[in-house]
Amino acid sequence: MPISNAELAVIDAYWRAANYLTVGQIYLQDNPLLREPLRPEHVKPRLLGHWGTSPGLNLVYAHLNRIIRQRDRNLIFLAGPGHGGPAVVANVYLEGTYSEVYPGITQDAAGMRALFRQFSTPGGVPSHVGPQTPGSIHEGGELGYVLTHAFGAVFDQPGLVAVAVVGDGEAETGPLEGSWKGISFLNPQRDGAVLPVLHLNGYKIAGPTVLGRMSDESIARLLEGHGYEPRFVVGSDPAKVHAALARALDESFDAIERIQRRAHVDEKPRWPVIVLRTPKGWTGPHEVDGVPIEGTFRAHQVPLSGVRTNPEHLAMLEHWMKSYRPEELFDDKGRLVAQLSALAPKGHLRMGANPHANGGYPAVPLEMPDFTSYALTATPPGTEVLESTRQLGQMLRDIYAKNPTSFRLFCPDETNSNRLGAVFEGGGARCLVERTTAEDDHVSPNGRVMEVLSEHNCEGWLEGYVLTGRHGLFATYEAFALIVASMTTQHAKWLEASADLAWRKPVPSLNILLTSTCWRNDHNGFSHQGPGFMDTIVSKKGTVARVYLPPDANCLLSVADHCFRSQNYVNLVIIDKQPQLQWLDMTSAREHCARGASVWAWAGNTGDSGPDIVLACAGDIPTLETMAAAWWLRKNVPELRVRVVNVVDLMSLASPDEHPHGASNERFVELFTEDTDVVFAFHGYPGAVHQLLHGRPNAQRFHVRGYREEGTTTTPFDMVVLNRMSRFHLVLEALRRTRRRPPHADRLENACHAQLETHRAYVREHFEDMPEIRDWTWTAS
Amino acid sequence: MPISNAELAVIDAYWRAANYLTVGQIYLQDNPLLREPLRPEHVKPRLLGHWGTSPGLNLVYAHLNRIIRQRDRNLIFLAGPGHGGPAVVANVYLEGTYSEVYPGITQDAAGMRALFRQFSTPGGVPSHVGPQTPGSIHEGGELGYVLTHAFGAVFDQPGLVAVAVVGDGEAETGPLEGSWKGISFLNPQRDGAVLPVLHLNGYKIAGPTVLGRMSDESIARLLEGHGYEPRFVVGSDPAKVHAALARALDESFDAIERIQRRAHVDEKPRWPVIVLRTPKGWTGPHEVDGVPIEGTFRAHQVPLSGVRTNPEHLAMLEHWMKSYRPEELFDDKGRLVAQLSALAPKGHLRMGANPHANGGYPAVPLEMPDFTSYALTATPPGTEVLESTRQLGQMLRDIYAKNPTSFRLFCPDETNSNRLGAVFEGGGARCLVERTTAEDDHVSPNGRVMEVLSEHNCEGWLEGYVLTGRHGLFATYEAFALIVASMTTQHAKWLEASADLAWRKPVPSLNILLTSTCWRNDHNGFSHQGPGFMDTIVSKKGTVARVYLPPDANCLLSVADHCFRSQNYVNLVIIDKQPQLQWLDMTSAREHCARGASVWAWAGNTGDSGPDIVLACAGDIPTLETMAAAWWLRKNVPELRVRVVNVVDLMSLASPDEHPHGASNERFVELFTEDTDVVFAFHGYPGAVHQLLHGRPNAQRFHVRGYREEGTTTTPFDMVVLNRMSRFHLVLEALRRTRRRPPHADRLENACHAQLETHRAYVREHFEDMPEIRDWTWTAS
Repeated sequence: MPISNAELAVIDAYWRAANYLTVGQIYLQDNPLLREPLRPEHVKPRLLGHWGTSPGLNLVYAHLNRIIRQRDRNLIFLAGPGHGGPAVVANVYLEGTYSEVYPGITQDAAGMRALFRQFSTPGGVPSHVGPQTPGSIHEGGELGYVLTHAFGAVFDQPGLVAVAVVGDGEAETGPLEGSWKGISFLNPQRDGAVLPVLHLNGYKIAGPTVLGRMSDESIARLLEGHGYEPRFVVGSDPAKVHAALARALDESFDAIERIQRRAHVDEKPRWPVIVLRTPKGWTGPHEVDGVPIEGTFRAHQVPLSGVRTNPEHLAMLEHWMKSYRPEELFDDKGRLVAQLSALAPKGHLRMGANPHANGGYPAVPLEMPDFTSYALTATPPGTEVLESTRQLGQMLRDIYAKNPTSFRLFCPDETNSNRLGAVFEGGGARCLVERTTAEDDHVSPNGRVMEVLSEHNCEGWLEGYVLTGRHGLFATYEAFALIVASMTTQHAKWLEASADLAWRKPVPSLNILLTSTCWRNDHNGFSHQGPGFMDTIVSKKGTVARVYLPPDANCLLSVADHCFRSQNYVNLVIIDKQPQLQWLDMTSAREHCARGASVWAWAGNTGDSGPDIVLACAGDIPTLETMAAAWWLRKNVPELRVRVVNVVDLMSLASPDEHPHGASNERFVELFTEDTDVVFAFHGYPGAVHQLLHGRPNAQRFHVRGYREEGTTTTPFDMVVLNRMSRFHLVLEALRRTRRRPPHADRLENACHAQLETHRAYVREHFEDMPEIRDWTWTAS
Repeated sequence: MPISNAELAVIDAYWRAANYLTVGQIYLQDNPLLREPLRPEHVKPRLLGHWGTSPGLNLVYAHLNRIIRQRDRNLIFLAGPGHGGPAVVANVYLEGTYSEVYPGITQDAAGMRALFRQFSTPGGVPSHVGPQTPGSIHEGGELGYVLTHAFGAVFDQPGLVAVAVVGDGEAETGPLEGSWKGISFLNPQRDGAVLPVLHLNGYKIAGPTVLGRMSDESIARLLEGHGYEPRFVVGSDPAKVHAALARALDESFDAIERIQRRAHVDEKPRWPVIVLRTPKGWTGPHEVDGVPIEGTFRAHQVPLSGVRTNPEHLAMLEHWMKSYRPEELFDDKGRLVAQLSALAPKGHLRMGANPHANGGYPAVPLEMPDFTSYALTATPPGTEVLESTRQLGQMLRDIYAKNPTSFRLFCPDETNSNRLGAVFEGGGARCLVERTTAEDDHVSPNGRVMEVLSEHNCEGWLEGYVLTGRHGLFATYEAFALIVASMTTQHAKWLEASADLAWRKPVPSLNILLTSTCWRNDHNGFSHQGPGFMDTIVSKKGTVARVYLPPDANCLLSVADHCFRSQNYVNLVIIDKQPQLQWLDMTSAREHCARGASVWAWAGNTGDSGPDIVLACAGDIPTLETMAAAWWLRKNVPELRVRVVNVVDLMSLASPDEHPHGASNERFVELFTEDTDVVFAFHGYPGAVHQLLHGRPNAQRFHVRGYREEGTTTTPFDMVVLNRMSRFHLVLEALRRTRRRPPHADRLENACHAQLETHRAYVREHFEDMPEIRDWTWTAS
């Protein structure tokens, strides 16, 4: 049954109200209802905001209100063009959510005045959609991620529909174009739905957009190629667009319900998508000073400038705002008239109040298995060679089993390669809603292991998943994590800003595991050798950023347990997947991880006395080389008192003023002494440690060896030699730095040089000899 | 005229030869021609490499050889699936290029043996396509960029065709999906052509690919939607595939020639694309130990393992290699037989020897205008407020004019916003090969300003442009540069590795301008405030990485002139676009930039004596705050001897052992003294400076203020207050740190606190007062 004209009139009025409030936020500091003639002093001294996209956002939001009420659907709204911050704020204000969350902004004239004044004002509300906006899980700054967030939000939420508005600017980005494929991973039986609204208004900031200039036919082909069924809503006459959009939405939700009712996932459904072509800055000034505005790039931000000083512009602003007929929309007290407020859904069905979007409350608690049950059994340190991440894989398998609808692993097709394949035991599978074949290995529409060769999708899906209260892990090659450095930065910023918002519920942490690290990509070569992602996390706020470098399986398990239980953090865990020596039994590992950094007394020889030199390490390979260096020193120059310190929580090095995990100066001195030289073997670029150590007692005594941007296809041991972090380099550095040069130091130095020369000769001569790959990788001595 | 069976037979033999050499590289260390029975000791001790994609690469390469010869075309080959390194090496060896570049690898049995042994061997050749591979401009590690590189290579190269093989793994990434739109920016009148070959073999590492599982119909729609005309070549019978591919290539090149012959660019041409569906690991072992290999994910890397110890596998390897009939392909001496070598083009038309791909030789020299002609005229420091990037815009305008076919600006739609709009003067325009409208501002198919809302495309196009010997600049918002941190890292790695290759010609530097910086995104808010991209560059090798922070227009011009003239660097230049105080006349600016860092004597008051405190700064806003702090100190505590140091070349802080720009310790002490405390105001995260200072005399005396991840929509001055880098914070820190506390210090401290309190009250109270935006931004005092 088509929607009636009366219903459309209400939607139109609601839309006008939202447009009015949007313009008011951009322009007015007083006289919010325009009940008196507009004067210059009513206008803000600084005009900020993005008008261009706002009427489109307001249009979609108003129409969705009807859908929610009529169909009793559970919807969340993601504004890809998040620059239209005032539009979304206008809507959550109209529906009443905003005043509940921010009681100072009441639903009356005084509240409206405050609403206008706070927007984009120093100390007020930011100009973009962000965590401050109720009902949002999507920041409107960096473009490209709205669909990945939408898909992440609806995985394992069968009742939820995420409506994602994609601007034609955003649609031009790579990450957005790569995210249409979410439907190949969306199972209508157990997941919710995403309804993308591709909003084409033709321009980005100053230039036209590619999609904005493409024909409807080309766009239809593109979206059909991606597997969607597009519906076009095109026009600039509000009445016609209202009718068309209402119809398109009804058809789209009919389609979604049809798809979700189907008994089997035999093939990928053709999910609906709406293409909405309306003018940029629609209903705004058509022409200013003889120059066209509406429908052009000039409507992007503030269409009328100089309003305080230009009487003509002031009159145009008044005319523009009055064109929405505010007297019909708001009563004398400034309240939305009852007929309109009836359009908005009630309670938690209001999109601004939807619990999924405000921390996922009620948050789904994660049932955790006992991580100690995956422990490797105690053997003397450095005697067993095992793949640490395999133990984590078993833990993940059991987390999946205990949390069948609230935990997922995201990975660019490397789950097996990363030794996490245990997640495929007991019915686990890769998710794919496409044709499968007999030769496929654990691939099914019912799988929950999310493998897509797109770091952007992995990261974005997980972000959407945790922001709606569920739990997960993104596991990826270390070097290629940098592909999503910017996304992770934005997520960290979201968490940093959320920390000040008591009404936003805490969300599970974003957990990232970096495997296939720079030190063990000797087979893949230089492009695969890059530890730089860590640096991105280190610079974020201590309230949010965590970096762990477990040296072995038991430490990894302990760290993982902690990360999965935590909230509101970005947890970065770095450990390689290759077989590696194991060091700590589970009891020691727990204690070590709880402390963040400890002396490994058994690896040194200082007994109770102070050291002549400290060997410190952070990361699995640095730990291996340090253990071996300590062994060489103990064996060859036993008179030298060597202390070994392992750092598993990198931020324990930071000053406690900068990071809550930062060790107190007392504890720091306990570990590293006050003034003994420290030879520090580090997983990443040495600069990361140097910056953390600034301000620590005598920081210049720390001699950090780490990745120096040297590498190629070679052997694992050659990687540590090329980067001057091998055991022999560490021994030589230790002998150079100690103030108490032991007897026989010369002999040991010569032996180290000889070992390095033997190694280099081996590499040089491989053409002639082609010997077995000789490597020290698996021994600590 | 269809290609004859005889011709196809030659192509097939050539393909077999390349496949044979590919397998040989992965497996053999001896007996390269299999002229004696294969024994375990002929097999390498470590088997590395990616077989799965290689037969497809070999197939396309062989067929392109025919196209080049028959049509006398100038082609370069970009292997998106660059893991297939041995395939590309096999081809450049077959055509003779490899032996010219690496004379040790001769075209005979001994050379073939060496070719096999060096592959993926320590000290040998890396396993991926990279700078070591002649004819390549595309590293095969990080996936997603092959089309951006291809488009960048053919801009302004009308005679060139870049054939870009896109693997179906890579096709799943966001950056790749976002790069099909290159044809909307490709002008057939003045640019070359890109022929994408979408090679679908169905799998990535372990799982199926989305495109691999989509129907031909869906893929056709997708590519047609993007604006292409697809041709499908599908099969597993070599003879049929050869015939179909030859036909598809002929038709595609006919189409390219037709498009390029057209007199006008009236609408976007439908460029050809080839979709090639062949089995993964085609022609390799069909089944091993009862498990299917060919056509499955198991063919991804090394299909036969344990060959040295498993006689059955050894026999299968021999059978596999002999299935290519090497005795027909190579003569007794191991040379490719004449009939086959005749297929390869000659000289520079060989794709491995194509000068475009080996440094763009003959490199196009850049004609530079005199940068001093854009200088702002000398006024006393800190008296004029101007937009510095506007001066750069004028310089860019004239570089365009002097280099009409070898310079381009790439920017995500922010050219005007970044005040570089002068490039639109005199006929300059944004490039767009789509419908344009009367309201468009400087948009034309003939434009050479490349605006696309995709940092990936901007960066990738510029990479392709400079790697083929041309010049350009990528200008972008600072925060969103991080989107391409990983791409830039890979480009830096390319340059780092190229430095060892004398045969590869130097290429123009990759120049990146970051504007709209964190300190002046007070209007856009927290998501737009992120200086982290710099950290990515700082960690790269000193041979390649350069970071400049010009404090004003004249310094910017001097730095830009230097960057545009340079080769083989990644030059990062950071300066905001907003109006800012100007400091140096052009003579001083040149000297200052040449030195990298200098004392600004006029800003301090030390005369010839040593300072009590050093105020240092790097970046435009830090310079402003430091100048103001120095002014406050000079005025209020004139007894305090203040020295001001400005750093324009960030790497001058680094140790000269780490970076060639690093100041000698002598020079460093001249600037910063040996032990006076330094209050350092810095553009980015403070950690970047701390890490560079490690090892400098008494590094702990440097107190760095910078971006602390604080921000929102606020005023410019509030940004420096929130991050504790304001002039008042600097003054307070200086008074706290100096060992000679001046008279009246208390009074000044109180004044600073009062100023900060006034500011904070202003921000707190804006709801009530809504005063004019009050800010110290434009004054140094």
